[in-house]
Amino acid sequence: MSILVVGSVFFDSLETPYGRAERTLGGAATYFSVAASFFAPVRMVATVGEDFPQEEVDFLTSHKIDLTGLEVRPGKTGSWKGRYHDDMNQRDTLDLDLGVFSDFQPRLAAAHTGAQFVFLANIDPKLQESVLDQLSAPGVVGCDTMNHWITGSRADLERLLGRVGLLVINDEEARLLSGESNIVRAARKLLSMGPKRILIKRGEYGVIQFSADSVFAVPAFPLEEVFDPTGAGDTFAGGLMGEIARSGELSEASLRRAIVYGSVMASFVVEDFGLGRLRGLTHDEIEKRYRQFVSLTDISGS
Amino acid sequence: MSILVVGSVFFDSLETPYGRAERTLGGAATYFSVAASFFAPVRMVATVGEDFPQEEVDFLTSHKIDLTGLEVRPGKTGSWKGRYHDDMNQRDTLDLDLGVFSDFQPRLAAAHTGAQFVFLANIDPKLQESVLDQLSAPGVVGCDTMNHWITGSRADLERLLGRVGLLVINDEEARLLSGESNIVRAARKLLSMGPKRILIKRGEYGVIQFSADSVFAVPAFPLEEVFDPTGAGDTFAGGLMGEIARSGELSEASLRRAIVYGSVMASFVVEDFGLGRLRGLTHDEIEKRYRQFVSLTDISGS
Repeated sequence: MSILVVGSVFFDSLETPYGRAERTLGGAATYFSVAASFFAPVRMVATVGEDFPQEEVDFLTSHKIDLTGLEVRPGKTGSWKGRYHDDMNQRDTLDLDLGVFSDFQPRLAAAHTGAQFVFLANIDPKLQESVLDQLSAPGVVGCDTMNHWITGSRADLERLLGRVGLLVINDEEARLLSGESNIVRAARKLLSMGPKRILIKRGEYGVIQFSADSVFAVPAFPLEEVFDPTGAGDTFAGGLMGEIARSGELSEASLRRAIVYGSVMASFVVEDFGLGRLRGLTHDEIEKRYRQFVSLTDISGS
Repeated sequence: MSILVVGSVFFDSLETPYGRAERTLGGAATYFSVAASFFAPVRMVATVGEDFPQEEVDFLTSHKIDLTGLEVRPGKTGSWKGRYHDDMNQRDTLDLDLGVFSDFQPRLAAAHTGAQFVFLANIDPKLQESVLDQLSAPGVVGCDTMNHWITGSRADLERLLGRVGLLVINDEEARLLSGESNIVRAARKLLSMGPKRILIKRGEYGVIQFSADSVFAVPAFPLEEVFDPTGAGDTFAGGLMGEIARSGELSEASLRRAIVYGSVMASFVVEDFGLGRLRGLTHDEIEKRYRQFVSLTDISGS
């Protein structure tokens, strides 16, 4: 089954303790789409300016990402400039130019309104909901959000949460949205807001998933070097939703496998700047690291 | 097989966001011994003052802990008073009186010098090494340490590390001892200092184990309430070493199972003040939570 993602396409200028990258392709929808494309066909809904280079269109197309929903509009593609601290959980935004993203209004092509597997990357919850309104019969819907919307657009966000199945957020956001500092109580509260499953990203400590009747935790893959954490969360979501779409169903077993594939993809993307590591990634590398995850977490040690 | 532990027996006065406890039985050797006693016979080597109550002797004896090595000396049992912050990873020491522990010199009874399974809880590395000197043919030796010895007695500690098989420390200590902030590089460096296996405790994020050819990570059990984190690390070590002694061997499979049992015991001890939760704990409860850990971490979701 194919998967529809709505979100941002940006150019990122990054500085980490390991080096820098200028105007590298980024944005939540981009990381998500490239990661998901290893698992299922992807349809990307986003907007870029007239400055968006043909070579990046070609790159995305080479991953069989359907760009029917990529609207090219007069103006500039959004851009972000950031610098990570030595503790790469901390970063400063040095510059942000939303460009044509500032008045993004996602409009689905007729061919996309029947999408079954949908991910609403981090944008204004009103826009996320407008996408749901355009879908005829969405099956599995996941969404992300961020502090900005949790504090500034809570009513919109709460309305949205009543309509999504999977909420994928980080631990800080989970605490802020729930008002609970304990992560178990936070997840219970978030479940009561609508989503059937809460996936909490814990950075170097991995991911923990809660539903009404299950808890599943997986560590992050232990890496000797993290070059650039940008996009790790979106890449996780891409591997996750990609594998769910590939399996064609959302069961406890498919979800757990999907969480591991998401973790695998996130563990690759941080090994180089921007999308660098994903550009040459092979299915063999993905399967090998999946098996390493199994070994990393297998209590039986067999 | 039985297990020998050397360390401290203290009285703790604790204050956490959930309440307080006055002069409750504590100390690394105590937490370790009680936890380990659910898995294997324990021989405790420690010292207490003449004020040590008979009821606590009876309690330890009821857990079949051999107190031949518990030296009662003129003076007071050590005591510690601490207060946890709202973030219970932080705590302040309000008062510390080492009592008879200040000149503790562990001397093994003849019957103990043949011990195969040994844990050197957190004390001066010179004393830890003096215990090794008294053992005729130790098999599996684990040790803990802390920032105080890492910065103040590094040469002694490094000599000790050349003689132990398992180093059990927390992530902050691993970084300090190795000089590496990345946990994988930290573990590689620590392996090069002698121990065959490095077990790094990550608090609410669980435990990660490194050997030359394996990595194993297990999350902490997700709890809605943590009443008192005191002794969680020592309780983990007790469950760990207890299960290794019970299995009678140190293989990859027995170690992984032991890490989970250690995590199970730690998840119980934080549910009440001091040793409270362990006092009435049953084997059925331990086995039930072990199965919950299997379910929590099972990628297959079966």
